Amino acid sequence: MPPLTSPPVAHTADLVVFGGTGDLSMRKLLPALFHSDRDGRLAPETRIIALSRGGLTDADFRGKVDAEVRDQVPADDLALWQRFLGRLHHLTVDVGGQDRTGWQALSRLLAGHESRDRVFYLASPPMTFGPFCRELELAGLVTPDSRVVLEKPLGRDLPSAQLINDEVGAIFDEQQIFRIDHYLGKETVQNLLVLRFANAFLEPVWNSLWIDHVQITVAETVGTPGRRGYYDHAGALRDMVQNHLLQLLTLTAMESPARNDREAIRDEKVKVLQSLRPIVGTEVGRFTVRGQYAQAGDLPGYLAEPGSTPPTEDSGRVETFTAIRAEIRNWRWAGVPFYLRTGKRMPHRRSEIVVQFKDVPHSIFPGGAPNRLVLRLQPEEGIELHIMAKEPGAGEIMLKPVPMSLSFGKTFTTRVPDAYERLLTDVLAGNPTLFMRRDEVEAAWRWIDPILDAWQASPDLPEPYPAGTAGPASAHELLGRSGRAWHEEEA
Amino acid sequence: MPPLTSPPVAHTADLVVFGGTGDLSMRKLLPALFHSDRDGRLAPETRIIALSRGGLTDADFRGKVDAEVRDQVPADDLALWQRFLGRLHHLTVDVGGQDRTGWQALSRLLAGHESRDRVFYLASPPMTFGPFCRELELAGLVTPDSRVVLEKPLGRDLPSAQLINDEVGAIFDEQQIFRIDHYLGKETVQNLLVLRFANAFLEPVWNSLWIDHVQITVAETVGTPGRRGYYDHAGALRDMVQNHLLQLLTLTAMESPARNDREAIRDEKVKVLQSLRPIVGTEVGRFTVRGQYAQAGDLPGYLAEPGSTPPTEDSGRVETFTAIRAEIRNWRWAGVPFYLRTGKRMPHRRSEIVVQFKDVPHSIFPGGAPNRLVLRLQPEEGIELHIMAKEPGAGEIMLKPVPMSLSFGKTFTTRVPDAYERLLTDVLAGNPTLFMRRDEVEAAWRWIDPILDAWQASPDLPEPYPAGTAGPASAHELLGRSGRAWHEEEA
Repeated sequence: MPPLTSPPVAHTADLVVFGGTGDLSMRKLLPALFHSDRDGRLAPETRIIALSRGGLTDADFRGKVDAEVRDQVPADDLALWQRFLGRLHHLTVDVGGQDRTGWQALSRLLAGHESRDRVFYLASPPMTFGPFCRELELAGLVTPDSRVVLEKPLGRDLPSAQLINDEVGAIFDEQQIFRIDHYLGKETVQNLLVLRFANAFLEPVWNSLWIDHVQITVAETVGTPGRRGYYDHAGALRDMVQNHLLQLLTLTAMESPARNDREAIRDEKVKVLQSLRPIVGTEVGRFTVRGQYAQAGDLPGYLAEPGSTPPTEDSGRVETFTAIRAEIRNWRWAGVPFYLRTGKRMPHRRSEIVVQFKDVPHSIFPGGAPNRLVLRLQPEEGIELHIMAKEPGAGEIMLKPVPMSLSFGKTFTTRVPDAYERLLTDVLAGNPTLFMRRDEVEAAWRWIDPILDAWQASPDLPEPYPAGTAGPASAHELLGRSGRAWHEEEA
Repeated sequence: MPPLTSPPVAHTADLVVFGGTGDLSMRKLLPALFHSDRDGRLAPETRIIALSRGGLTDADFRGKVDAEVRDQVPADDLALWQRFLGRLHHLTVDVGGQDRTGWQALSRLLAGHESRDRVFYLASPPMTFGPFCRELELAGLVTPDSRVVLEKPLGRDLPSAQLINDEVGAIFDEQQIFRIDHYLGKETVQNLLVLRFANAFLEPVWNSLWIDHVQITVAETVGTPGRRGYYDHAGALRDMVQNHLLQLLTLTAMESPARNDREAIRDEKVKVLQSLRPIVGTEVGRFTVRGQYAQAGDLPGYLAEPGSTPPTEDSGRVETFTAIRAEIRNWRWAGVPFYLRTGKRMPHRRSEIVVQFKDVPHSIFPGGAPNRLVLRLQPEEGIELHIMAKEPGAGEIMLKPVPMSLSFGKTFTTRVPDAYERLLTDVLAGNPTLFMRRDEVEAAWRWIDPILDAWQASPDLPEPYPAGTAGPASAHELLGRSGRAWHEEEA
């Protein structure tokens, strides 16, 4: 089947990456841009301009990229790789300092190309977002066709998020601001939109009449070695729930949008966030769980992870695991718990959405169990629908749950692009559908903040769980007290 | 998982098979009985008594069975096979004749075993059913725990079916009569009951709101070599539609039964047959198609098939293919066509039920196609749900239909029993759920008869189709005129 529409031809762009020699840039952005280039989604004159404090020349930078990224390039594509390297530039800038040389050099490089799309990609810490934007404004570099891309974390609570949004919003219109949650660039996450809104058979069961509850799990096996200094001030709720898990929740729960466009989908997502029942005061203890991994066998506890800084009082209070029972107050979802769970040092690396259906209203065969739809995001992307079938045999009818399954890796031979490839393509095409709008980010913080506040006010520490296990006992009780269980706990 | 209930222990039985040395007996019944024996579902004293005109001793019969059936027995089971052969007996009887010796011998063999279950299996032509039953009555062999099993065809129209039912019903209560449609013993057909009534997610979509139409196809690649004498008086409508296809239709369309018992399921099936919109008079030409295969390449036409008798006028008028647009007049199915199709000399051997869903009410992605659920009965049993997914790629969202699938052969390692094994187990256990009740058979003929009448009254002959193709042009127009197509015709 030929593609229904050709990929949009991107305008010629100047893509300016702050933090252009950093880890995200080398590991994600530049490989994604190369793949976009190889697949014909970069205009011939498009340039990539890395900014850092590093003092590199263009040639130095190209050499560095060649050395660090080329092993991701197929041997057949080396000619294209050389062409890609030719797009790269580097300038040294001093943010917030007195030295204006770098900014002047950037102005000169961009001068005469005002009609190009300009993308300023801020792959740098959030406290630099405001200053960077002011420097751009000061240097007169913000054109009507400019966009700015913000990496997470977008603040650490509602006030700090609002401050960032105000600072960036003073220079750029909301339409020009692309807030990245890279989960939205994952193929399976987009497939969730397709699954829900291009398939009729799911719609009549997608509500409280037929669904008992939903589980959203993002489990990591890694701990935080070397990152405790950062993580002490983040924690699982800020680091994962406020963005990734709530995004998965909105896509699972949203009403059908009228159009696949920049506003219609985000309008529906915001409505879900705004419909989340607030968890406040004493309810926080009942509907949320926080844990911190403790030493188990060879695995060190959080406080003993080799880190750049010694543990502080903050270290003892930060959660490396959280589980939350969320509720959405609208017609579709009233009474259906959404259980969110994420943690480090868990037994398996796994991201999944489990939609647990109610049982048949009346059972005429012995045994049986309710249907379940599992949307696997990683490690292997796929969909499984667990149905009841008859176990073969000539005796009494015995039911057996069996999976009807779809593995994307096995079904599609096409290369699955990295999330950043999709998102950069959309930035260059000026399509913000898969980026978070200001009201989305702030609605998420508005729901998160009272939980953070209650945790902070509590004298209790996070509940310890042995490293390599599925979280503390309370996480199991969170479901267990209503007779439910986390997906992997069922035999 | 251990079985939820043990298989019921069968009572000791005397199983008397009329036509016991015939094709069905050797090919299906005796292998099925051996497997039942091996799996512990025959009581130790249960006997199998074959009746024929053949003049065999028990030893002759055991030798014949050993010679013809043993190749279906795994080498490990030869000891069990010897035990099974010990259950076999043979008596020579003369049906409708003057010689009473055989019946007296049968009486002697059964005497003293009146407390056993007695099963009289009539694997003989339907015109013998009445006479056999009268002989049994005459010989005083019908006990309260007797059952009679009737093989198809159960008549060739409503009056002849009623006559058989009256004759057998004069000797046996309806509860004692087991009318076989071996399709009901197939694993996948029983799985259809399980799929529908042990899985909640299908119920809300299983109606005219979400389903566009249903297709039921039973396609054979074989012709009728050597069987034209029989087939001239049968035809596809009597041979396949009246029983197998209408049974599949009832199981697909029935309301949920309140219990898995002998009457509740059959009550619901009868309701479907009684709700079929009659096709009468001029409507027959609009809603039915009949075809006869014609010579194509190496494949002979029906009239040129090597047969025991030369073709007659009947041969020219008999249909080897039929397609029908049926409608069910009830709340669930009003407005949803059920397309039935069966034929000989078709391109592929295939039995399947295709549930074609309606498209999404509003589409926000380009492309896309409605969902479809395919229940494959043969050659390989399985379920496929065709859903829309996103084709991987960082460009515009492209939809692609992909199957979520379940193959019973790959999922279950247990041996899949033959349909007759299940049905014989049920006969011995006295469970008639999977057998056709009198009102079911007669309701089916009541719907079939006006079609047969109209065809007979028509001067037209069946439409020829080249052997090895999917039926005549009119079969395609039957769907095509409403913009639909048979499943395999879509690219």
